[in-house]
Amino acid sequence: MPEHDLQFLSELAAQLRVDSVRASAAAGSGHPTSSMSAADLMAVLFSCHLHYDFSRPDDPANDHLIFSKGHASPLLYSLFKAAGAISDEELLTFRQHGSRLEGHPSTRLPWVDVATGSLGQGLPVGVGMAMAGRLERVPQHVWVLSGDSELAEGSVWEAAEHAGSEGLSNITLIVDVNRLGQRGPTRHGWDLGAYARRFGAFGWHTVEIDGHDPGQIDFALSDARNTRRRPTVILAKTRKGAGVVEVENREGAHGKALKEPEQAIAELGGPRSLTVEVRRPAGRAEPYRFGGGELALPEFKIGDEVATRTAFGEALAALGTARGDVVVLDGEVADSTKAEAFATAHPERFFQMYIAEQQLVAAAVGMRVRGWVPYAVTFAAFLTRAYDFIRMAGVSQSPIRLVGSHAGVSIGADGPSQMGLEDLAMMRAVHGGIVLYPCDANQAAALTAEMADLSGVAYLRTTRGATPVIYPPGERFPVGGSRVLRHSPSDRATIVAAGITVHEALAAADLLAKEGIGVGVLDMYSIKPIDAAALMEAATTTGNLITVEDHRPEGGLGDAVLDAVSELGPRVVKLAVRGLPGSATPGEQLSDARIDRHAVVAAVKRLL
Amino acid sequence: MPEHDLQFLSELAAQLRVDSVRASAAAGSGHPTSSMSAADLMAVLFSCHLHYDFSRPDDPANDHLIFSKGHASPLLYSLFKAAGAISDEELLTFRQHGSRLEGHPSTRLPWVDVATGSLGQGLPVGVGMAMAGRLERVPQHVWVLSGDSELAEGSVWEAAEHAGSEGLSNITLIVDVNRLGQRGPTRHGWDLGAYARRFGAFGWHTVEIDGHDPGQIDFALSDARNTRRRPTVILAKTRKGAGVVEVENREGAHGKALKEPEQAIAELGGPRSLTVEVRRPAGRAEPYRFGGGELALPEFKIGDEVATRTAFGEALAALGTARGDVVVLDGEVADSTKAEAFATAHPERFFQMYIAEQQLVAAAVGMRVRGWVPYAVTFAAFLTRAYDFIRMAGVSQSPIRLVGSHAGVSIGADGPSQMGLEDLAMMRAVHGGIVLYPCDANQAAALTAEMADLSGVAYLRTTRGATPVIYPPGERFPVGGSRVLRHSPSDRATIVAAGITVHEALAAADLLAKEGIGVGVLDMYSIKPIDAAALMEAATTTGNLITVEDHRPEGGLGDAVLDAVSELGPRVVKLAVRGLPGSATPGEQLSDARIDRHAVVAAVKRLL
Repeated sequence: MPEHDLQFLSELAAQLRVDSVRASAAAGSGHPTSSMSAADLMAVLFSCHLHYDFSRPDDPANDHLIFSKGHASPLLYSLFKAAGAISDEELLTFRQHGSRLEGHPSTRLPWVDVATGSLGQGLPVGVGMAMAGRLERVPQHVWVLSGDSELAEGSVWEAAEHAGSEGLSNITLIVDVNRLGQRGPTRHGWDLGAYARRFGAFGWHTVEIDGHDPGQIDFALSDARNTRRRPTVILAKTRKGAGVVEVENREGAHGKALKEPEQAIAELGGPRSLTVEVRRPAGRAEPYRFGGGELALPEFKIGDEVATRTAFGEALAALGTARGDVVVLDGEVADSTKAEAFATAHPERFFQMYIAEQQLVAAAVGMRVRGWVPYAVTFAAFLTRAYDFIRMAGVSQSPIRLVGSHAGVSIGADGPSQMGLEDLAMMRAVHGGIVLYPCDANQAAALTAEMADLSGVAYLRTTRGATPVIYPPGERFPVGGSRVLRHSPSDRATIVAAGITVHEALAAADLLAKEGIGVGVLDMYSIKPIDAAALMEAATTTGNLITVEDHRPEGGLGDAVLDAVSELGPRVVKLAVRGLPGSATPGEQLSDARIDRHAVVAAVKRLL
Repeated sequence: MPEHDLQFLSELAAQLRVDSVRASAAAGSGHPTSSMSAADLMAVLFSCHLHYDFSRPDDPANDHLIFSKGHASPLLYSLFKAAGAISDEELLTFRQHGSRLEGHPSTRLPWVDVATGSLGQGLPVGVGMAMAGRLERVPQHVWVLSGDSELAEGSVWEAAEHAGSEGLSNITLIVDVNRLGQRGPTRHGWDLGAYARRFGAFGWHTVEIDGHDPGQIDFALSDARNTRRRPTVILAKTRKGAGVVEVENREGAHGKALKEPEQAIAELGGPRSLTVEVRRPAGRAEPYRFGGGELALPEFKIGDEVATRTAFGEALAALGTARGDVVVLDGEVADSTKAEAFATAHPERFFQMYIAEQQLVAAAVGMRVRGWVPYAVTFAAFLTRAYDFIRMAGVSQSPIRLVGSHAGVSIGADGPSQMGLEDLAMMRAVHGGIVLYPCDANQAAALTAEMADLSGVAYLRTTRGATPVIYPPGERFPVGGSRVLRHSPSDRATIVAAGITVHEALAAADLLAKEGIGVGVLDMYSIKPIDAAALMEAATTTGNLITVEDHRPEGGLGDAVLDAVSELGPRVVKLAVRGLPGSATPGEQLSDARIDRHAVVAAVKRLL
C-alpha cells in the first residue's frame, strides 16, 4: 500500500477516535474505548473494501456491515460522519433525547440493518444475510464487527457451524480482540490462537493480524473477500482505548466518557475533517427471485378432523407456490411441525438450520433485511431458546414470521419439556408483536397466508392433535378479529377460547344448553391485537367471561382478555394450566389441567 | 476384559434394548431407536464405571448421570430396572397417566437430578455439577449422555468453553453419534473427526470409539475418569435402532414405537432378567462447606438515594458471610449488577461465566442439585437469552435464584437493547416461579436475603438509578405481601406500583393531594405471588385501580393485578411502556413512556 494511503488511513483512524471521544463527551456517556480499539479496522474497511451507496441504503448490491459490538456506536456514527451520511452536529446529538444516534445502533438510521446491543447476535444475523445473498446470486458481502467478549455466546458458535458447514464465503467476521471485557480481562486475552483453533475447527478460514496496522488489515480484508468456499474470521489484536494513554489497555475504562476529553483529543492530534469516499457497488444487482402465481390454499371439509399444524404446512407450501419471496427455516423438526410440506414443494427455499433455535430466528431476521418473507418454524416450547433474538427482532421492528407447533398440554405423553406453555406470554410481550392461534384447519391455513404481510414480529401457534374443522374453506380471519361461535340473547356468560380450547368451549356450551343454561362462545384466534370490541360486547351483554387456554395462567389469553375489558370490569374467570403436567393422553392432560369441557361447565356453574 | 464380562455386557445391552422396545410398545409411543443406539454405552457405564447408590440418591459421593438426550428415556428406565430401582411392572407404565416414567425424564424420579428433553441442556447443567464437585473437593464424576443432533445447540459450546477452559476433568460427555436426527441425517453424520476437532479446539480430551464395542467403551470410560486437567468427550459411532433390522440405521424410525415389537424382541434374543450391581461410592463423601455466621444486612438511611442494584450487591455479600452455601454466578457484568460486592467478599464462591447466559443459568441449576444456593446475575434484558433454561428449571422445580438489573426504560441513554422490558412476563409464566421487584434499598436488601430459601425459580428485578430510601432498615417483606404507602378513607383511586414507579406513584399522590384528590398507593414488591387480598381491599374501598410499571403492557404488574381482582371487576387503568424507546435521560424515558408522575396524575383525572 502506498505511503500516502497509509497516512490517510492513519489520519482517518485518528479522526474516528477523536470523534468517538467527542460524541461520548457530549453525551456524558457511551463507549469510546471500545470504539478506539476498532478504529483502524473500520478505517481500512470503509476506505478500501466496503461497497456501499449511502444514498441508496436499500440497494441490493450494497454490502452489509453489522456492528455486533453495538456499544461501539460512537465509532459507527463517526464512520457515518466521515462518509458524509451525517453531519458533525448530528454526531454530537449522540444518546440525546430524540436523536437517531442511540446508545446502541437502531434501525431508526437507514444504514443500520438490524439493532444490536445484545452481544453475540451480529454474526448469526449476518449469516442470514449471507444465506440470502447466496440465494439471490449477488456479489454482496457481509461484514460483521464483533468484540472478543461476545465470542463466549453460544449463538456465535451456532453461526460458526452454519456458515462453516455451508461454506458461506460471503461473510467475514472481524473480531476486535482488545482483551478487555466490561468487568475485566476476557477469558482468552490476546491469545488469538485460541480463537483461531475454534473457528478453524468449525471450517473457517482464519487470519490473525495486528489490528492497528493498516497494511495488515488491508491484506486481511482482501483475503477475506477473495476466499472461496469458506467464511473468514479476521482476529485482530488491538488495544482498548488505543491512542490515549489515560485509557489505553487499562481496566476500569469500559463504557464511560473519557475524564479529560480535551486532553485526549489533543493527544490524538486534534479534530480533523477528512471524508472517505466509500466505494459504491459496481453496477446494479439483479437479485434472483422466484416466480409466483395464484394463491390456492388447501381446503378442509367441515367435520373432518385435521391438525392445525398439518393445515399450516400445506398452506405454507401453497403460499410458497403463490409467492416467490417466501422462505422457510426449520429447526430440524419439519416432520413434526409439518413445514416438511414446504420442503417438498420448494426445496431451494427451505433451509435446514438443525437444532439451533437462536440461529434459526437470527437467519430469519437476516433474510428479512434483504426482502425475503421468512417463516422460522419449530416447537413452541423451543422458541423460548431464542427469546433474546425475538426480543431484538422486535426492537429492530423486523417483520419475521415465527411458527410454534406442539403448543400446550394437549400434546399428550411427551411431557412438560416439549409443551409450549409460556409462548403466548413471551410473544405478547414483544414490541409490536402479533400473536395468532387458530382452532381449525381452514383458519390455520388462512392465518398462515394472512401473516405474510404483517408488520412486526408475527407468531402463529399450532396444535399437535387433530381437531374438527368448524369453518368453511375460503373464509378470512383478519388480524385483530374474533368469531362469535355461539350467541343467544339469553346467554348468561361467554366462554372465550382460542386454539384447542375452542372445541372444549363448544362442547361445554352444548352440555350447558342441555341443562338450559345459555352461554356464548368467542373464538379469539387473534390474541394480539385482540378484538376488544367483541370482548366488551360480550362482557356487556352477558356480564361474565370465562377464559380457557392451554397455557400458563400468566401472560396468555386470559391476561389479554382481562386487559381488553379492564376499564369495564366484568367478572372474569380464567382457566389455564396451573400445575406441572406429566405424561398422559391429550384428553387426560386437558382434564388434569382443568381446561376441558367439564372444567368449563363447572366454572360456568360456579360463576352463575 | 475377560470373555465372560464381555458376554454379560452384551446380554445386558440386549436386555436394555428389549426393555426399551417393550416399554415403548406398551406406551404406543416413545423413542426406542434412540435408546437402542446407546444401549451398549450405558450397559458398560452402569456395569463398570458409574458410582451410585440407588438407595441413597442424595449421597454427595454419588456420580451424576444426565440423559441430555431425554427422549432416550426408555433406555434410562430400562437401566433403572436393571439396577433394581424400579420393577418390570413399573417399566411398562411408561408414558401413562400418573406414571413417574414420563416421556422425558423428570425429577419425579429420585434418581433424576434435572428434567431433560430440551436438547443441549445436559452438558451445561452437568458443568454446574462439576463446578460444585470441584468446590466441594469430592471425587464424584459427572457423566452426560448426549445425542449428536443436539451438538448444534450453542449452549453445548458455551459449556464446552467453560469446561475446557476451567479444566473440569470431573465431567465426561458421551456422544451417541447415531447419525440420524429426528427429520433425517445430522449435519456431520458419522464424521467423528468433525466433532473431535471442535471439542479439541475447546480444550477437551477426545476419544473416538465404536459405540457398540464393550471393550472400546470400557477403555474410553476408564480413560475419561482418569484424565486430569481436561474434560473428556467420548465420540461413539453407533447405529440408531441397533439390533433390529426393521429400524437399524434407517430414516423415518425416530420417535415411534416399533411396528412389530414381538418380532424385534425375538430378534434381540427375547426378554432377559439380568441385574446389574452398580458400584456404590467408596466411603462417605465429606463435601467441603464454607462457614457462616450472623446475617448483618446493609442498612440504608431513609431519604438517602441508593440504587436497588447497589443494595442487592451489598446484601448478597452479607448473605454470603452469613451462609456458606450461597454461590454467585456472573455474566461478566458484575460491576454493573453490583454482584461485584460478593466477588470481593467471597472470591472463592464467585464464578465468572463470561457472556454466556445459558451456561450462567445452567450452572446455577447444576450447582443447586448439589445443595448450593446459587444466585445467577446479569442484566434483566439478557436473561431472555436463557429463557429455555429458566423454563426447564421450572419443570425441574429447581430453586435457583435469578437477579436481573437495569430493568426498564429508566436505565436512560443506553437504549432498548439493554432495557429489560419483557422480563416480568417471561418470569411470571415460569412454573412455580416467584417474582420480586423492590423499590428501595432496604427492601432490596431484605428481599435478597428472603429469596435464599424460597422453593421454585425466584427472580429479583433491580433498578439502575438511585431511588430514595423510603423504608427503615430491618423491616421484613414477606413473599406474597405488599405495602400500603398512602391510604385515607377519602381515596378515590389506588395507584398500584412496583420498583421505580413506586416513587412516581408517591409523587403523583402528592400532586393530586394538592388539588384535593385523595389517592392510595400500594407497593406490590411481590409480583408473583401477588397480594390479592390487599388488591381486593383497595378495589373494594376505592373502586378504581391504576397500575404503573416500567415494563411492556403484556404479562407484567398490570396483568398480575388484573388477574388478582378479576372476579371482583374494578375499573383498572394500566400504564406501561407501549412504544419503542430510544435514548434519553431516565426522566425523559419515564415521561415518554407515560409512566411518570404526570402520566399517573393524568390517568387518575381521566378515570375520575
